[in-house]
Amino acid sequence: MTVDTSRPQAPDETTGAVAPSRRRFINSAALAGLGLGVVACSESKPAAPAAGAAASTAPAAAHGGNPGHLKPGELDSYYGLWSGGHTGDVRVLGLPSGREILRIPCFNPDALVGWGHTNESKKIMGTKADGTLRYTVADTHHTHASYKDGNYDGRYAWVNDKINSRIARIRLDYFVCDKITQLPNVQGFHGIFPDKRDPVDAAINYTTRVFCGAEFSIPLPNTGTLDDKKYRSLFSCVDAETMEVRWQAMIDGNCDLVATSYDGKLAATNQYNTEMGAKYEDMMSAERDACVFFHIARIEAAVKAGKFKTFGSSKVPVVDATREANADPKTALSAYVSVPKNPHGVNASPDQKYFICAGKLSPTATVIELAKVLDWFEGKLEKTDAAIVAEVELGLGPLHTGFDGRGNAFTTLFLDSQVVKWNVEKAIAFHKGDKTAKYVVDRIDVQYQPGHLNASQSETVAADGKYLAVGCKFSKDRFLPVGPLHPENEQLIDISGEKMVLMADHPVRGEPHDFIIFKRDLLKPKQVYALDDFPHAVKDPKESGVTRNGKKVLVKMTSQAPAFSLREFTVKKGDEVTLILTNLDKVEDLTHGFAVPGHNINFIVNPQETASVTFTAGEPGVYWCYCTHFCHALHLEMRTRMVVEA
Amino acid sequence: MTVDTSRPQAPDETTGAVAPSRRRFINSAALAGLGLGVVACSESKPAAPAAGAAASTAPAAAHGGNPGHLKPGELDSYYGLWSGGHTGDVRVLGLPSGREILRIPCFNPDALVGWGHTNESKKIMGTKADGTLRYTVADTHHTHASYKDGNYDGRYAWVNDKINSRIARIRLDYFVCDKITQLPNVQGFHGIFPDKRDPVDAAINYTTRVFCGAEFSIPLPNTGTLDDKKYRSLFSCVDAETMEVRWQAMIDGNCDLVATSYDGKLAATNQYNTEMGAKYEDMMSAERDACVFFHIARIEAAVKAGKFKTFGSSKVPVVDATREANADPKTALSAYVSVPKNPHGVNASPDQKYFICAGKLSPTATVIELAKVLDWFEGKLEKTDAAIVAEVELGLGPLHTGFDGRGNAFTTLFLDSQVVKWNVEKAIAFHKGDKTAKYVVDRIDVQYQPGHLNASQSETVAADGKYLAVGCKFSKDRFLPVGPLHPENEQLIDISGEKMVLMADHPVRGEPHDFIIFKRDLLKPKQVYALDDFPHAVKDPKESGVTRNGKKVLVKMTSQAPAFSLREFTVKKGDEVTLILTNLDKVEDLTHGFAVPGHNINFIVNPQETASVTFTAGEPGVYWCYCTHFCHALHLEMRTRMVVEA
Repeated sequence: MTVDTSRPQAPDETTGAVAPSRRRFINSAALAGLGLGVVACSESKPAAPAAGAAASTAPAAAHGGNPGHLKPGELDSYYGLWSGGHTGDVRVLGLPSGREILRIPCFNPDALVGWGHTNESKKIMGTKADGTLRYTVADTHHTHASYKDGNYDGRYAWVNDKINSRIARIRLDYFVCDKITQLPNVQGFHGIFPDKRDPVDAAINYTTRVFCGAEFSIPLPNTGTLDDKKYRSLFSCVDAETMEVRWQAMIDGNCDLVATSYDGKLAATNQYNTEMGAKYEDMMSAERDACVFFHIARIEAAVKAGKFKTFGSSKVPVVDATREANADPKTALSAYVSVPKNPHGVNASPDQKYFICAGKLSPTATVIELAKVLDWFEGKLEKTDAAIVAEVELGLGPLHTGFDGRGNAFTTLFLDSQVVKWNVEKAIAFHKGDKTAKYVVDRIDVQYQPGHLNASQSETVAADGKYLAVGCKFSKDRFLPVGPLHPENEQLIDISGEKMVLMADHPVRGEPHDFIIFKRDLLKPKQVYALDDFPHAVKDPKESGVTRNGKKVLVKMTSQAPAFSLREFTVKKGDEVTLILTNLDKVEDLTHGFAVPGHNINFIVNPQETASVTFTAGEPGVYWCYCTHFCHALHLEMRTRMVVEA
Repeated sequence: MTVDTSRPQAPDETTGAVAPSRRRFINSAALAGLGLGVVACSESKPAAPAAGAAASTAPAAAHGGNPGHLKPGELDSYYGLWSGGHTGDVRVLGLPSGREILRIPCFNPDALVGWGHTNESKKIMGTKADGTLRYTVADTHHTHASYKDGNYDGRYAWVNDKINSRIARIRLDYFVCDKITQLPNVQGFHGIFPDKRDPVDAAINYTTRVFCGAEFSIPLPNTGTLDDKKYRSLFSCVDAETMEVRWQAMIDGNCDLVATSYDGKLAATNQYNTEMGAKYEDMMSAERDACVFFHIARIEAAVKAGKFKTFGSSKVPVVDATREANADPKTALSAYVSVPKNPHGVNASPDQKYFICAGKLSPTATVIELAKVLDWFEGKLEKTDAAIVAEVELGLGPLHTGFDGRGNAFTTLFLDSQVVKWNVEKAIAFHKGDKTAKYVVDRIDVQYQPGHLNASQSETVAADGKYLAVGCKFSKDRFLPVGPLHPENEQLIDISGEKMVLMADHPVRGEPHDFIIFKRDLLKPKQVYALDDFPHAVKDPKESGVTRNGKKVLVKMTSQAPAFSLREFTVKKGDEVTLILTNLDKVEDLTHGFAVPGHNINFIVNPQETASVTFTAGEPGVYWCYCTHFCHALHLEMRTRMVVEA
């Protein structure tokens, strides 16, 4: 392995010191050191600040009180949408308080709302032939919301499931998942990002597509071979409204994260495995990987022109976006810009001008200028790498980048356990040759090993540079010990000043990855459902009753605190019972639950909501069905009896 | 319905005013008003303070900063164990910060740790003949921990599942559920409390039993009849170590909450449905219900003497603790003390002297003196009700009571949306006739409709009167709107001074019920497992490999960041694959995950933990199994390939 010594040393704004030689590509030989980087923080002390960099140590108190702490009754000023990781949900946080206000179940069952238990949710999640759920595990990583005029418009959010290559959509009026789509032909669907306007029709200045990157290359068709050379990754485009897969693009290398341009013309994905390796050593053999840019208008024209393949039973058109097929810029569907060693993260700056890739195994960030990539597609730039306007050293293990809307970028340094604040234009000047350009503005230690970060409104034209949240993968000694499984630590940093100030530690159940933070006035949620939202609503208690059709029994019921409309109902052993419950209570926050002992049934109905469950009546006996969601002083007394006859 | 006008009016410490006439039993006629009590808070403003009572409105700031807000890196001083409600888990909070540090899955699957997915957890949860989980819903209400010398000893906690009458035990060294028992012969298992010492052997000054109350009466045996008169509730005793049901006691009326005496002699359960009604109107027809005390030593002697029945297939001995069979105090197994209308909650005071029941539909708390109940069992007291030493008015909808260890009790008022602080000895004096005894010390508005509360160390001899948490069932306008499902609001109150001071609002996912709060030094959790804890541990990477026995395939593997010991493994379509994974990483907080695309597998292994899963290999193809828990800079590259051959 060679060490790159051709690039200049990076002077640091805070010290003027030249970064030491350890700030280099991390090669295979340095793997032990990587391990040590993690091991070091088991010593229950903050990671040492990076050599040559003075990390901020100013306590939050120095910032004039602590603006993150709300008084009782005070409301947060920002929403945060957090992916839930293993829990397969999206979590809604209030910021700056860090309060977790809601979990929106998507891919996995949720026993509170009855997600995966009610017929309505099972239909969205997908079932096997026997009616049981197809999947009950997921791994959500990235959540992003729909745009209009470059800012969030409060219609939808999306989140990915990496295990089973699914994408879920969330309605942001009711905060519920309403559609799930499984991507064909891919494994390891990881990155996700909506477009921000149409690539052709400028009148469509809002999200109509969601782009999805597949991280693991597989044989196409996937027939069970170990022959690496036939493996491929696809980049997918999902329709924001229908949630159908519009098209896929076959590439060289893999997809990691995804970003989109504000003009709607390009989508991008960084690649950490251009080697197409199957083992981690192979995946890090090349000194440079890439960031692929997709020319959306050309891809959609190619699809329209029938220039695509399909694989297996999938009908989704797959265009060829490999390097070889796209050598001519004037017709190319894709452009590959090189990025140092195993980059992780690609983010579009709010000034709409740059895409930034962090090096992960290189201590650098690469700044790619959108206009120059477009120039290449127009044949005005000879090489794609000429679109690189900066490649500067930041620290060890750079992963993701956020923005403050004032020209500064904030990048997590996984191995250094830091966030580094750096000025993009100064980095460009430095890269151009101005060695006096001190692009590193500040560093701050975080606790510990940060992955994603995001600043308030960071990925919109309205980036406001107020708060920065950092998803620290290890929390170690930051919270009371609770056995072997530690929470992660979502730290909040005030970025309104020149220096970053750590405001608070917030534990979160593992393991959120990405998140977005936006102003609360961008959402107008509805607090009570409309009866008409539900075609099967039991709109009047008088409609309640039991009807039988052979072995199929339909039970219709309403709830109004403190009673269900049926005080008892009778079925027979072995009946297939479908129970529809409408909550006629209209009062905000007056939710009822419904549990059937021994029949594995529990779900809730929010005000004016209808839900249904289907189950097989068990052994003869009396089963007290009861309200499981506190509703009234007589909540404990709110019950109905199901009598199962022999 | 009659209104009780015989009891004296209660003067209020804070105003000296006499409580108005609305502070009376709430009868059926007042039901509409109950509804309105809830409806009123939909107006998005705090409930009005109770007439005649000046509620505390002092802001937290008046308390000299806000001690509930920790600086980054600061640790909490108390643990909180919170029941999870529908989510079937126990949540671990740090206090005073309100941080949720861990969820301990018990009754329901948890996709983060693989609870309900790994073979080890499925064995604890219980499966059907086809190997799928018996239950995937639960409704946990009460969590309590094991005692020694009247204080928590850090061994175990228990939590109930009301839907399926299960009790789960949690090991407090690793914070994991290790046993679940389903109670026979009952429905609606609600209240739960460990004993604090042995009723006979004084040397056993720690918990050896857990008592469980069943709320819903059912036919015994449960043969499917609607005939109310044959319905019965049982009170159950579970062995703290074996988790087997030692015995059950048949009673008149039902069981709600449970409390135990510090001397180990008595357990108690309050009854809100002595009427044995099946509809809520019937359940509130009597003006007084009861609190039943069980004489544990006598019950166990009766069991030993063979004086019991069994029901159905259950072998658990059931003694007769009904009123009729226990009229003679000298041999009685049970004592029924009357308590006003539909009481909710029974709590033992930390001075070891009193049991307090709150009236729910009566505005009163009833104080029952333990010594007098014991006197009755000795034949020294003519009537059980003579053990009542106070019955005083507190406000509308009193539910649960906590203690500060300085003689004061704190009771939630559901309808008034308040916590009332009152002095127990002054209440006794007032009840005795001293009308100058101002027993109400303070009131504070809470937001809104509080259910359970608990003070730090409240149910131990070490009650320290520092913090009080209040589980408010409705949060309404206290948090950013997130659609129809609101979080609940666990408010924290400083009770160290004479006046209560509201410190913070903490949203929680519905719906925790009860919780306990104790000093952090009572626990000594282990942060890393021992390899020998797991009989199937793969202790050396060299043991890794695939072995076949017909269609059964065993895959043994280890994880050490950033690699699994097998880089690929091959099975055949239709194989029953059991995969054992041992995490050989020893570093605290270095957890790995393991996901298999398309096979519904995801679970984690904490440092030095072993877990296994069993699944059927699907369609031929390459499946990238990957680490789902962030572990290392090369986490994304940490994978293995499962190749399924035709």
